Order: sequence, then C-alpha cells, then structure tokens
Amino acid sequence: MASKAANASRAASTTPRRRAASRAAYLEAKLGFRNYWYPAVFAHELADGRAIGVRLLGENILIRRVGGVPMAVEDRCLHRGVRFSRKPECYTADTVTCWYHGFTYRLSDGKLVEILTEPGSSLIGKLALKTYPTIEAKGIVFVYIGERAAGELAGDVPPNFLDPDLEIDGIRDEVKTNWRMGAENGFDTTHIYIHRNSPLVTGNSIVLPLGMYPNDKHGFSTYTESEPKGVLDHTFESYHPVFEAAIDGQTVARSKGINNQKIVAREVSIWMPGALKVDPWPDPALIQFEWYVPVDVDVHMYWRVLGKRVGSPAEAAAFHEEFETRWKTLALHGFNDDDIQAREGMEEFYRNDDAWEQEHLFKADSCIIEWRKIASQHNRGLQPFA
Amino acid sequence: MASKAANASRAASTTPRRRAASRAAYLEAKLGFRNYWYPAVFAHELADGRAIGVRLLGENILIRRVGGVPMAVEDRCLHRGVRFSRKPECYTADTVTCWYHGFTYRLSDGKLVEILTEPGSSLIGKLALKTYPTIEAKGIVFVYIGERAAGELAGDVPPNFLDPDLEIDGIRDEVKTNWRMGAENGFDTTHIYIHRNSPLVTGNSIVLPLGMYPNDKHGFSTYTESEPKGVLDHTFESYHPVFEAAIDGQTVARSKGINNQKIVAREVSIWMPGALKVDPWPDPALIQFEWYVPVDVDVHMYWRVLGKRVGSPAEAAAFHEEFETRWKTLALHGFNDDDIQAREGMEEFYRNDDAWEQEHLFKADSCIIEWRKIASQHNRGLQPFA
Amino acid sequence: MASKAANASRAASTTPRRRAASRAAYLEAKLGFRNYWYPAVFAHELADGRAIGVRLLGENILIRRVGGVPMAVEDRCLHRGVRFSRKPECYTADTVTCWYHGFTYRLSDGKLVEILTEPGSSLIGKLALKTYPTIEAKGIVFVYIGERAAGELAGDVPPNFLDPDLEIDGIRDEVKTNWRMGAENGFDTTHIYIHRNSPLVTGNSIVLPLGMYPNDKHGFSTYTESEPKGVLDHTFESYHPVFEAAIDGQTVARSKGINNQKIVAREVSIWMPGALKVDPWPDPALIQFEWYVPVDVDVHMYWRVLGKRVGSPAEAAAFHEEFETRWKTLALHGFNDDDIQAREGMEEFYRNDDAWEQEHLFKADSCIIEWRKIASQHNRGLQPFA
Repeated sequence: MASKAANASRAASTTPRRRAASRAAYLEAKLGFRNYWYPAVFAHELADGRAIGVRLLGENILIRRVGGVPMAVEDRCLHRGVRFSRKPECYTADTVTCWYHGFTYRLSDGKLVEILTEPGSSLIGKLALKTYPTIEAKGIVFVYIGERAAGELAGDVPPNFLDPDLEIDGIRDEVKTNWRMGAENGFDTTHIYIHRNSPLVTGNSIVLPLGMYPNDKHGFSTYTESEPKGVLDHTFESYHPVFEAAIDGQTVARSKGINNQKIVAREVSIWMPGALKVDPWPDPALIQFEWYVPVDVDVHMYWRVLGKRVGSPAEAAAFHEEFETRWKTLALHGFNDDDIQAREGMEEFYRNDDAWEQEHLFKADSCIIEWRKIASQHNRGLQPFA
Repeated sequence: MASKAANASRAASTTPRRRAASRAAYLEAKLGFRNYWYPAVFAHELADGRAIGVRLLGENILIRRVGGVPMAVEDRCLHRGVRFSRKPECYTADTVTCWYHGFTYRLSDGKLVEILTEPGSSLIGKLALKTYPTIEAKGIVFVYIGERAAGELAGDVPPNFLDPDLEIDGIRDEVKTNWRMGAENGFDTTHIYIHRNSPLVTGNSIVLPLGMYPNDKHGFSTYTESEPKGVLDHTFESYHPVFEAAIDGQTVARSKGINNQKIVAREVSIWMPGALKVDPWPDPALIQFEWYVPVDVDVHMYWRVLGKRVGSPAEAAAFHEEFETRWKTLALHGFNDDDIQAREGMEEFYRNDDAWEQEHLFKADSCIIEWRKIASQHNRGLQPFA
Repeated sequence: MASKAANASRAASTTPRRRAASRAAYLEAKLGFRNYWYPAVFAHELADGRAIGVRLLGENILIRRVGGVPMAVEDRCLHRGVRFSRKPECYTADTVTCWYHGFTYRLSDGKLVEILTEPGSSLIGKLALKTYPTIEAKGIVFVYIGERAAGELAGDVPPNFLDPDLEIDGIRDEVKTNWRMGAENGFDTTHIYIHRNSPLVTGNSIVLPLGMYPNDKHGFSTYTESEPKGVLDHTFESYHPVFEAAIDGQTVARSKGINNQKIVAREVSIWMPGALKVDPWPDPALIQFEWYVPVDVDVHMYWRVLGKRVGSPAEAAAFHEEFETRWKTLALHGFNDDDIQAREGMEEFYRNDDAWEQEHLFKADSCIIEWRKIASQHNRGLQPFA
C-alpha cells in the first residue's frame, strides 16, 4: 500500500517539474516585485500633517501628508537608525524631525536640513533619506517601490479601478502568511468550496457554486502586451460550475445558492503586482478589488475594497452608508474572513520551499499556474529578501 | 581555585568520552526511532466517525474511527498541503474530504477517490495519501511509524501490558522537552529524591527511599534477544535504598516513608522505543506504564497509565472509579507532575548537543547508560530530523 | 533624487570606515568584557542564607550569602546540568544541594562534597563547580567574571563611587536591548533632547539644554593610564549647550529649563567595563551612577543608582527616605524610563552588525567614538558569544 502511494505520487509529480522553469521567479518572490505602485494607507488614515509608518515589501516607510499631498521617506534616521514613526515629530509643514537627536529632514527630497541639538552641523546638506514617490487615488495612498522611474498608476492596478464614476470603500488587515497565499487563494476558482455556507449566499441571494473549473485551456485570457499584466477567468462563459457533489454516488454537498437569482463573479482576474478583481461581487452592482501587499516574508496586508458606479455625490454617500452597514459585515468579514483561515492553512506547507514541488495541482488550478507564469516572466524586478 | 575546578572537570570527563561510541545513535535520536508502534490517542477520545490530528515523531497524522476501526493517514492534503484536521470533513464512513477544495481520500488505502469541486478530475485514482497501520489495544490507539512491515504490538510495549486480565486507565499530556528527558527521568533510580515530600508517600503509606543505587553492575538485566528490548532494574534485590542523608555528618534529609509497610517499585524497567514500567506502582496492586512519545524535537507526549489485574467487569469498573477518584490526583498528578518539572529543568542543558559530553554521571546512573546503549545498538531505525 | 541621496550617503560613509580599526573589539563585545567586576544584586535582595540565580554576560550564576558573605558558583549542577536556582536547596550554611539528585557542593570552593542519594559516591571530591569572586560594597554585591586574578573593585567602578561618605541607593531592571545601546545612550550628550519635557526639569528646577556639543576635540579627557579607564566630558567648560532650535529660521523647540538655577551634569563620564557617572545629577547634591550589564546578547540589566555625601547616620537615613519618596519616581523612572525607550528604538537597527558601518555620527558623537576606541583598545578581554 505504501509503495503504491509512492508510485502514484511519483507519476503525478512530473507535471510540477515541467512547470518549474516558467515559474522560477515567482517562487523567489517571497517579498514581491519591485518597480510597482502599492497601496500603503487609506487616505482617511492620513489627516493633514499626520505621519504614519508602514512596512511594504520589507521596507520601513514614513508617510506624511504635507499640504494635502502625501510624502514618503525611509522610516529610519540616518544617524542611529531609529524609526521616526516610533514617535513622529513634525515641527514644520514639510519636514520630519527625529525624536532622538533632532535630525531634521525635508520630506520632498529627503535632505538633512537641520540638527536641533547641534545647529550648523557639517552633516547638514550632505545626507539624504531615500524618498518614495506617492500618488493618492480613490481614497488610497499608493507608494512606489523601486529604482526605475515610476510609471502610471493605471498600469499597476486592476482595470476599471480608476474609472471616474467608481466610488471606493474598504478595509485593510494584516494576515500572517506570505502574500502569495493571499493571491492564490483569491484567484482560485474552486476555493469557493469553503464559502458554501457563508451568510452572504443566503443574505444576498447570490449564485455560488461549490467550485468552477475551466472547460478547456481557453477558459482564461492572459494580458501581457499592455499594463497591467494579468490573467482573467471568463467564469461565466468558459467555466463549468459545480453545484452538487457526490462521493461513491452519494450526494454529499449542494450549493445553497443554486436557485438564487443574482449572478456574480462573471469575471475573476488577477493583476501584477498582486491585485484581484471580482466583477461583479458581492452584488451585481459592485466590484471587489483585493491587494495582497507583502509586509514581511510571512505577513501580508490584505486590502478588501469595493467599488460602485455612482452618478452623484448623493449616490456616493449612499454607497458609503451601504458599505458600512451592510457589505463590511456581510461580505468583507462574513465571507472573506474565511479566506484568511484558508491562507493560514496553507502557510505551514508553503513556508518550506520544497512545497512548490510537492503540491499536486488539478485542472481547476490552470489559472493559478498561468498567474505564476505571468508573474515570473513579466515582472519588473524581484524584491530581495534576507 | 578556578584551575583546580578545571582539572577536576577534565579528569571526570574521560568517562563520558569512552562511552561515546556505544551511545551514538541515541544522541541522534532527537525524534525517536522508526519502525515501532506508538500510542497516539486514547480510544475514548475517538468516538466513531470522529477525526483527530496528532503529531508523532514530527509527522502529522489524521486518525479516524471507521466502523469501529481506527484508520490513519497523513494529515496533509496532497493538493495544497493543508491539514485536514484544521477542519475535519467526513461525508462518508470511510473517507476524509479536504475542507479547502474538496479533495476526498479513502482512509483504508489513502487513495484520492473524488474531488468535490471538479468531479471526474484526472487526478482521481492517481494520488494516494501515506497510510499508517493502527491497532487498538487496552483502550489505546497505537500507530505504527516506519517503512518496514509492522510487527506485533507485543514487541513494542512493556511486558505484561497486554495481559488479558490487566485493566488500563490513564492520561496524556504534552511536555515541552525532548522525549529523552522524559525517558531518563522516569528510569532514573535516584530522581525519586524530588518526590520525597510527595503526598503519595503519606497518602498511600508506601516505602520511598531518597534514592536507590545498584550494589554492583549486576543490579539490572538487559533484554536484547527478544522483543521488546529493554533494561530492568531489580531494585528490591540488587539496589541499595538510601533512607537518610547527611552533609558533613549532619543529617539533612530523611525518607518520610521509611516506616511504611507497602513495598512498591520492586522492578523498574524501560523498553524500546521509549516506555517505562514500574511494578508495582503506586500501590502493591497496581503497575504503572509510561510512554514518552516524540512530538517534535522539543516536545513529547507524556502518557501516564495504570494497570490493575481484574477478574470481572465489576472489578474493572471499580478500578476505573478508583483511578478517577484516587490515583489520578494522588499519583499521576500529585507525584508525576514533579517529574515534568524535572525534565523541564534538564531541557535547557541538553538542548545543546555538547551536553552529552559535559554531563557527569555517577554509579546510580548505570542503568541509564545501559538504556542509552541498548537504544543505540538495538533500535530499528532513526527518525530523521530537520 | 534617489541617486543624489545615494551620493550623499556614499560621501558620508567614508568617515565610519576610517574609524573601523580602532573600534573593532567593541563591535565584537556583544556580551561585554571579561576580567571585570560587575554588579549582580543589591545586598538587600540577598538575606542571609538566601540563594539567587543571576545571569551575567551569558553565564548563569548562583549567589548565596553565607554567614554574611556572598558566595557565587556556577548555577548548573555538574551531574545533569539543571540550575540550582530553579529550586534552591541549602541544608547547611556553606553548601548548595541540587534539587534533582542531591549533589551537594561547598560554596567556598565549589567542590562536590556529598551526594544525598548515593552517599560515598566515587565522584565526591573529584568534581568542582566554577566559583566566582564576590565583593559587597555600597549595598551592592559585585561578581567578578574572568579567568585572571580579580583586581581591586575600585579599578572597575566609576571614580568616587566607593568614597566612604557617599551613601548609595538605587534600582535595577532588565532592558531588552544589547548593553551597548544602554552605554551609548547614557553617555550621549545630545540624547537629552528626548528629555526636554521631562517632569524632572520643572519638578527640580534644573538647567537642561536640548543638547550639548563639544567646542573642539578637547571637550573630553581620556583616562587610560590608570584604573578605571574611561572618558569624561567637561560639559560645563568645553561644551556648547543648545537651548533653542530652529528649522528654516523658525524656532521650533526651546529648553524648558533655560531660566532654571540648578546646574547639573557638569561632568558626564563612562568607565570600563560599562558604567556611567553623571556628576552632579539629578540635583546639585547628588551623583548618578549607571551600569549596563550584559545579560544576553539582546538583554542588559540597567542599574540606576544615586549617591549622596552624608555626614551621619541620620543624613544617610534622610537620603534613603528622599530617594524613595522623590528621586525614584521623579528622576529614575520619570526621567530615565525615556532612555529605555530610546535604547529600544536603536535595537532593531544595531541588531544587524552592518549597522556600525551604516550609522552617520556627528560632531556631538565624538565622545561616543572615543568611548568605543577606549573600550576596544583597553579592555581586559572579550566575553565570547555563541
């Protein structure tokens, strides 16, 4: 019995081996990819003058809003290496002063402009903090991590996210797994099995199969000629939904939403450097966007964001009200908190680099294999890790 | 003064060095030995249909009782590596279904028999989980860890444990030390010094010396020609009990049980792969068995089990009642909890592999040296560790 | 912008590189220096007969007061390596007995004099614990760590600490940073910026600038010809105090104590193996002494001690009363707890050995550079670390 199992295992593992070359960079991307824009904080977290420390791709960054504009510098004084954000001190509009010895830097260019405890020090003007480009869009402050010149934000976020009529609201939470566990769980078309009893299904009358698998290899489209690059599953057209499952001929699970009316998740897509779009979701009138931003090798920031097309400030206000009172609890927490559990379940296995050779993917995982391939072959650079 | 100490230390350390060859395998056995049966759970923990995850010798194992019979498979879905036991799902009598994507395995042979989210997947029938042999005996489910064909359980448990008239009851607890700290503390004939004030001594009128040391090298017998292999101290015949101790002529400690009537611990023995027998204990009518099962390098499962010979169901019931109301508190916790403290006290030192060269054993430790030798020379294989 | 920053950084980093040779030993001194006296416990913690375990420079030591005299031995039984201090047993005035098997050692010379569980063991007289010299002075028990013969305590403590008319009181607390973060924060003449709003300034009407920097390289004296070796800042004579600071011409910070009357911190000095003296402080009638004793690589024991010259037992008693009711809260906690925060702020950066190359020191740090040089060139030996 043991040897049969071993044989079966050996046969199946040839498939992963053949895939190895095309996904090599992805397996190295423990801290994600450089030369992209990443969401850092919600705009409402950053009142004018306020300074916040964040960690993105293993880099500590201080963000402060100066005259309405977010500025970002490395969150580490060049003198003795302490983080400004432990006790942010900002005496003037466009500077940050280190709480320890008063080293004062200009946020716009990072230059050391004063030392409060030794005015006129010869170091002044000779040192500069690393600065990071920032953009504020859709109520989110994005920071660019990389050494190349920053490109358009539109090239680094899912399509339609920046549409002028799209109103955005959301939450962010740290999750203790590598960011790829987040990305792969989100884009996975059969992971919805874990959601089969979610209050969202009955609470919003949506159709939710137990899983969906592609009819053939044309179930998804890849986008590698323009920005952003990504993979899109045409779930409605080219995927087969499973509503009922049997073991040895005995029905054991059935979708609760099989007779529901609202069709959602017609398209599920993932985009570099690691953002999901589910359109529509969790309601035919909404789109869900997610980011899985590397914090450290074993932590990512999970962004859950909903968008709704609105035609007036009143509609926008109604959406935010609806977000707070309905979607945040029913969908983002009620449904997506299950995804956090699933990622945590994978973390132990994938912490070991051999896992990528030991896993056994099935046809429904084709879109994940494609995502890994695109991420490996079309990224702008790997973030090194220690 | 410092140099004198160094000299003394050097002189004594030649002894351990000479012993090194004969105990080499034991020092490598951080995760214990392969090709043995190990207790995994008490039978009463495993109601029919219930699935429990355990970790034995660093391996995660799922045990489920199917039609009364315990079945064991590796606790890791072959698809994405998650543990079934995080959220066990068992739809039919003899399968386990992964909570993440519905991969369903037959417990008897480990084969992938269905995938609920992609019925008819080409992987079905091609993959199989590793399975583990199980045996239920004396109210304990044993699991066999190894690649060789499993032998008789009788060869892997202390003598008499399987005697038909012996009724068994017990508890198990995780202890945060390597398993060898458990085994050596249990078999140690002078560690009883720590128990000299135990409520068990006065509460059950047993004779308990401060320590016992062998009169000569024939104080113990070794069993290496048959199974199980082990060492047995003839404490009553060949050991010298110490009831009173003095420092510089001044009496400083005296056994509380010196005038008691009940003779216990006539024989203390240890058996591969790491189980103790104290006969009789903690009462002339009882035998105590213990296992120190490796969980991880720094954790072991401590099994404390009592056996009593019974002649009828009524006597068996009376024993279980007596176990619950008397022995569990007075003996297993009241007495043996002190042993847990002792093991924890050793852990810091023995965590460092050099400790085995730095320790200074005395004559009373001869039986421990013999145990290390037998474990090194007569084991069926080492469990590798990372 | 990024490349400008990189250039500036490169230019400034030539300075640290030139300093590397002279401070090499200091950078290796993660666990401090051997062959020195270190404060271990306050005398009042060690009632006669009591045994306490301490960890100094990574060594576990048991201290017991025997007939009024503190004795120190390694806190590890030679038999199975357990710490005596887990459960100290002392049956006679000058011995310690291991709680596990009764190995009994004489504290004065460390010799194994008895084994309670095997009286007359052949090991008796052949093994000895390492012993440590001790001295009690000024209400503190000092332990000598090293292999060379211990010298006078006076050579290892700041000047005046042992003056007969100086009455001492203090506290000690573990801080989770390397000891050098403590030493450098304490001796740093501009770190006082963090204290600018301390209740001590207004509560005791002391003059406290935002920072002080040396007028030239003669701002401090070095003492390397006699013991103890150290560096002393003549802050009052040769340092420039900064009472007001501006950014872009705008005043942003002003000393609260600028108009106060009490001059303190006229001299700030640091002494091998790592002790500070601030004279006077926190009042013109007081002197503050501090030790930063390595416990482990990432923990040090922070000793905060005040001294006052007294002429009678009544004055001594008044000082202890004043210490308890006023200085402990206002100065030691109210002021120096901020220093703990500062050290913790540095720890993340300096945990990485590259930090010492990446830091950018300024003129005010000259005395710290001098301290590193003296510690590197005039120490009596490095404590090795794992």
